[in-house]
Amino acid sequence: MTRDPAKTDPDHYTVVFENDRVRVLEYKDKPGEGTSWHAHPDSLMYTLSAFRRRILADGRHVDVELQAGQARWVSAQEHSGQNTGDTDSYALFVELKEPAAASSRAARAPLGPSES
Amino acid sequence: MTRDPAKTDPDHYTVVFENDRVRVLEYKDKPGEGTSWHAHPDSLMYTLSAFRRRILADGRHVDVELQAGQARWVSAQEHSGQNTGDTDSYALFVELKEPAAASSRAARAPLGPSES
Repeated sequence: MTRDPAKTDPDHYTVVFENDRVRVLEYKDKPGEGTSWHAHPDSLMYTLSAFRRRILADGRHVDVELQAGQARWVSAQEHSGQNTGDTDSYALFVELKEPAAASSRAARAPLGPSES
Repeated sequence: MTRDPAKTDPDHYTVVFENDRVRVLEYKDKPGEGTSWHAHPDSLMYTLSAFRRRILADGRHVDVELQAGQARWVSAQEHSGQNTGDTDSYALFVELKEPAAASSRAARAPLGPSES
Protein backbone atom coordinates (compact mmCIF):
# COMPACT_ATOMS: atom_id res chain seq x y z
CA MET A 1 0.00 0.00 0.00
CA THR A 2 1.40 3.34 -0.97
CA ARG A 3 2.19 5.83 1.73
CA ASP A 4 3.02 8.58 -0.72
CA PRO A 5 1.04 11.58 0.55
CA ALA A 6 0.33 12.69 -3.03
CA LYS A 7 -1.57 9.39 -3.34
CA THR A 8 -3.01 8.98 0.17
CA ASP A 9 -4.19 12.59 0.43
CA PRO A 10 -4.49 14.11 -3.05
CA ASP A 11 -7.02 16.67 -1.78
CA HIS A 12 -4.34 18.18 0.44
CA TYR A 13 -0.95 17.40 -1.14
CA THR A 14 -0.12 18.64 -4.65
CA VAL A 15 3.11 17.87 -6.50
CA VAL A 16 4.30 21.21 -7.89
CA PHE A 17 7.79 20.18 -9.09
CA GLU A 18 9.87 17.05 -9.55
CA ASN A 19 13.28 16.19 -10.98
CA ASP A 20 15.92 13.55 -10.20
CA ARG A 21 16.97 15.19 -6.92
CA VAL A 22 13.88 16.64 -5.30
CA ARG A 23 10.11 16.54 -5.34
CA VAL A 24 8.15 19.56 -4.13
CA LEU A 25 4.69 19.35 -2.58
CA GLU A 26 2.26 22.00 -1.47
CA TYR A 27 0.04 21.08 1.46
CA LYS A 28 -3.28 22.79 2.20
CA ASP A 29 -6.09 22.05 4.61
CA LYS A 30 -8.76 23.78 6.67
CA PRO A 31 -9.46 23.70 10.41
CA GLY A 32 -10.67 20.24 11.45
CA GLU A 33 -9.29 18.53 8.35
CA GLY A 34 -6.41 16.09 8.39
CA THR A 35 -4.50 13.43 6.52
CA SER A 36 -4.39 9.66 6.24
CA TRP A 37 -1.32 7.78 7.41
CA HIS A 38 1.54 8.67 5.05
CA ALA A 39 5.33 8.76 4.75
CA HIS A 40 7.77 11.61 4.21
CA PRO A 41 11.36 11.18 3.09
CA ASP A 42 13.83 13.70 4.60
CA SER A 43 12.21 17.02 3.72
CA LEU A 44 12.54 20.73 4.23
CA MET A 45 9.19 22.23 5.22
CA TYR A 46 8.50 25.95 4.76
CA THR A 47 5.30 27.40 6.17
CA LEU A 48 3.28 29.59 3.80
CA SER A 49 0.67 30.37 6.48
CA ALA A 50 0.53 30.25 10.27
CA PHE A 51 -1.13 27.09 11.57
CA ARG A 52 -1.51 24.75 14.50
CA ARG A 53 -1.64 20.98 14.12
CA ARG A 54 -1.25 17.63 15.80
CA ILE A 55 1.11 15.05 14.32
CA LEU A 56 0.34 11.44 15.31
CA ALA A 57 2.38 8.26 15.06
CA ASP A 58 2.44 4.88 16.82
CA GLY A 59 0.77 5.92 20.06
CA ARG A 60 2.46 9.27 20.50
CA HIS A 61 1.76 12.74 19.20
CA VAL A 62 3.20 16.22 19.08
CA ASP A 63 1.36 19.53 18.85
CA VAL A 64 3.04 22.13 16.70
CA GLU A 65 2.31 25.81 16.22
CA LEU A 66 4.10 27.65 13.47
CA GLN A 67 4.09 31.14 12.03
CA ALA A 68 4.23 31.83 8.29
CA GLY A 69 7.72 31.90 6.78
CA GLN A 70 9.36 29.31 9.04
CA ALA A 71 11.75 26.65 7.71
CA ARG A 72 11.76 23.32 9.54
CA TRP A 73 13.32 19.91 8.96
CA VAL A 74 11.09 16.83 8.73
CA SER A 75 13.22 13.70 9.13
CA ALA A 76 12.04 10.66 7.18
CA GLN A 77 8.97 9.38 9.05
CA GLU A 78 5.44 8.06 8.84
CA HIS A 79 2.59 9.88 10.55
CA SER A 80 -0.82 11.46 10.13
CA GLY A 81 -1.69 15.07 10.83
CA GLN A 82 -4.71 17.07 11.94
CA ASN A 83 -5.38 20.80 11.67
CA THR A 84 -6.16 21.65 15.32
CA GLY A 85 -6.16 25.41 14.86
CA ASP A 86 -8.64 27.92 13.50
CA THR A 87 -6.70 28.90 10.37
CA ASP A 88 -5.99 27.15 7.07
CA SER A 89 -2.68 25.29 6.82
CA TYR A 90 -0.48 26.05 3.83
CA ALA A 91 3.04 24.67 3.62
CA LEU A 92 5.71 23.69 1.14
CA PHE A 93 7.67 20.40 1.37
CA VAL A 94 10.94 19.96 -0.53
CA GLU A 95 11.57 16.20 -0.42
CA LEU A 96 15.17 15.01 -0.88
CA LYS A 97 15.51 11.96 -3.09
CA GLU A 98 18.99 10.97 -1.87
CA PRO A 99 18.87 9.20 1.49
CA ALA A 100 21.06 10.63 4.25
CA ALA A 101 24.48 9.16 4.95
CA ALA A 102 23.97 6.37 7.51
CA SER A 103 25.99 8.12 10.19
CA SER A 104 24.32 11.48 9.98
CA ARG A 105 20.93 10.76 11.50
CA ALA A 106 19.68 9.49 14.82
CA ALA A 107 18.09 6.04 14.85
CA ARG A 108 14.74 7.47 15.83
CA ALA A 109 13.77 10.67 14.09
CA PRO A 110 11.88 13.34 16.01
CA LEU A 111 8.17 13.23 15.25
CA GLY A 112 6.99 16.22 13.24
CA PRO A 113 9.02 19.28 12.23
CA SER A 114 12.22 20.13 14.06
CA GLU A 115 14.52 23.11 14.19
CA SER A 116 17.65 21.35 12.95
CA MET B 1 37.31 34.88 -2.52
CA THR B 2 34.00 33.59 -1.28
CA ARG B 3 31.12 33.35 -3.70
CA ASP B 4 28.63 32.38 -1.01
CA PRO B 5 25.67 34.70 -1.60
CA ALA B 6 25.10 35.01 2.16
CA LYS B 7 28.58 36.63 2.23
CA THR B 8 28.66 38.49 -1.09
CA ASP B 9 25.14 39.94 -0.69
CA PRO B 10 24.12 39.86 2.97
CA ASP B 11 21.64 42.70 2.39
CA HIS B 12 19.64 40.45 0.07
CA TYR B 13 20.31 36.83 1.10
CA THR B 14 19.47 35.62 4.62
CA VAL B 15 20.19 32.13 5.93
CA VAL B 16 16.97 30.97 7.59
CA PHE B 17 17.83 27.29 8.19
CA GLU B 18 20.81 24.96 7.96
CA ASN B 19 21.57 21.35 8.81
CA ASP B 20 23.85 18.66 7.36
CA ARG B 21 21.73 18.19 4.21
CA VAL B 22 20.34 21.56 3.21
CA ARG B 23 20.77 25.27 3.71
CA VAL B 24 17.80 27.57 3.18
CA LEU B 25 18.10 31.19 2.06
CA GLU B 26 15.54 33.93 1.65
CA TYR B 27 16.26 36.46 -1.09
CA LYS B 28 14.77 39.94 -1.16
CA ASP B 29 15.42 43.00 -3.27
CA LYS B 30 13.70 46.05 -4.73
CA PRO B 31 13.35 47.22 -8.33
CA GLY B 32 16.74 48.31 -9.68
CA GLU B 33 18.69 46.43 -7.04
CA GLY B 34 20.86 43.42 -7.76
CA THR B 35 23.57 41.12 -6.53
CA SER B 36 27.33 40.71 -6.79
CA TRP B 37 28.77 37.71 -8.59
CA HIS B 38 27.96 34.62 -6.50
CA ALA B 39 27.59 30.83 -6.66
CA HIS B 40 24.62 28.55 -6.06
CA PRO B 41 24.88 24.81 -5.46
CA ASP B 42 22.00 22.74 -6.93
CA SER B 43 18.97 24.44 -5.40
CA LEU B 44 15.21 24.43 -5.42
CA MET B 45 13.88 27.98 -5.78
CA TYR B 46 10.34 28.85 -4.73
CA THR B 47 8.99 32.31 -5.51
CA LEU B 48 7.29 34.13 -2.63
CA SER B 49 6.41 37.13 -4.84
CA ALA B 50 6.05 37.77 -8.54
CA PHE B 51 9.16 39.39 -10.05
CA ARG B 52 11.13 40.00 -13.20
CA ARG B 53 14.91 39.80 -13.32
CA ARG B 54 17.98 39.44 -15.49
CA ILE B 55 20.53 36.73 -14.67
CA LEU B 56 24.02 37.39 -16.05
CA ALA B 57 27.03 35.12 -16.49
CA ASP B 58 30.13 35.06 -18.70
CA GLY B 59 28.84 37.22 -21.55
CA ARG B 60 25.34 35.83 -21.71
CA HIS B 61 22.13 36.58 -19.86
CA VAL B 62 18.58 35.37 -19.46
CA ASP B 63 15.51 37.39 -18.56
CA VAL B 64 13.06 35.61 -16.29
CA GLU B 65 9.54 36.54 -15.23
CA LEU B 66 7.91 34.50 -12.50
CA GLN B 67 4.65 34.54 -10.60
CA ALA B 68 4.43 33.95 -6.86
CA GLY B 69 4.26 30.30 -5.82
CA GLN B 70 6.41 28.80 -8.59
CA ALA B 71 8.99 26.09 -7.94
CA ARG B 72 12.05 26.11 -10.20
CA TRP B 73 15.36 24.26 -10.28
CA VAL B 74 18.62 26.22 -10.20
CA SER B 75 21.48 23.96 -11.28
CA ALA B 76 24.84 24.67 -9.64
CA GLN B 77 26.11 27.87 -11.27
CA GLU B 78 27.75 31.25 -10.79
CA HIS B 79 25.98 34.41 -11.86
CA SER B 80 24.76 37.82 -10.81
CA GLY B 81 21.17 39.03 -10.89
CA GLN B 82 19.31 42.30 -11.34
CA ASN B 83 15.72 43.18 -10.48
CA THR B 84 14.48 44.50 -13.85
CA GLY B 85 10.82 44.68 -12.87
CA ASP B 86 8.73 47.12 -10.89
CA THR B 87 7.99 44.84 -7.92
CA ASP B 88 10.06 43.59 -5.01
CA SER B 89 11.65 40.14 -5.42
CA TYR B 90 11.11 37.61 -2.67
CA ALA B 91 12.20 34.02 -3.10
CA LEU B 92 13.26 30.97 -1.13
CA PHE B 93 16.31 28.85 -2.04
CA VAL B 94 16.71 25.33 -0.65
CA GLU B 95 20.36 24.47 -1.34
CA LEU B 96 21.28 20.78 -1.51
CA LYS B 97 24.56 19.92 0.20
CA GLU B 98 25.09 16.58 -1.56
CA PRO B 99 26.44 17.03 -5.08
CA ALA B 100 24.50 15.35 -7.90
CA ALA B 101 25.57 11.95 -9.19
CA ALA B 102 28.06 12.60 -12.02
CA SER B 103 25.80 11.13 -14.66
CA SER B 104 22.65 12.98 -13.78
CA ARG B 105 23.43 16.48 -14.96
CA ALA B 106 24.36 18.05 -18.28
CA ALA B 107 27.89 19.38 -18.61
CA ARG B 108 26.65 22.94 -18.94
CA ALA B 109 23.79 23.88 -16.66
CA PRO B 110 21.07 26.19 -17.94
CA LEU B 111 21.60 29.75 -16.75
CA GLY B 112 19.01 30.85 -14.20
CA PRO B 113 15.95 28.92 -13.06
CA SER B 114 14.59 26.05 -15.14
CA GLU B 115 11.42 23.99 -15.14
CA SER B 116 13.08 20.61 -14.54
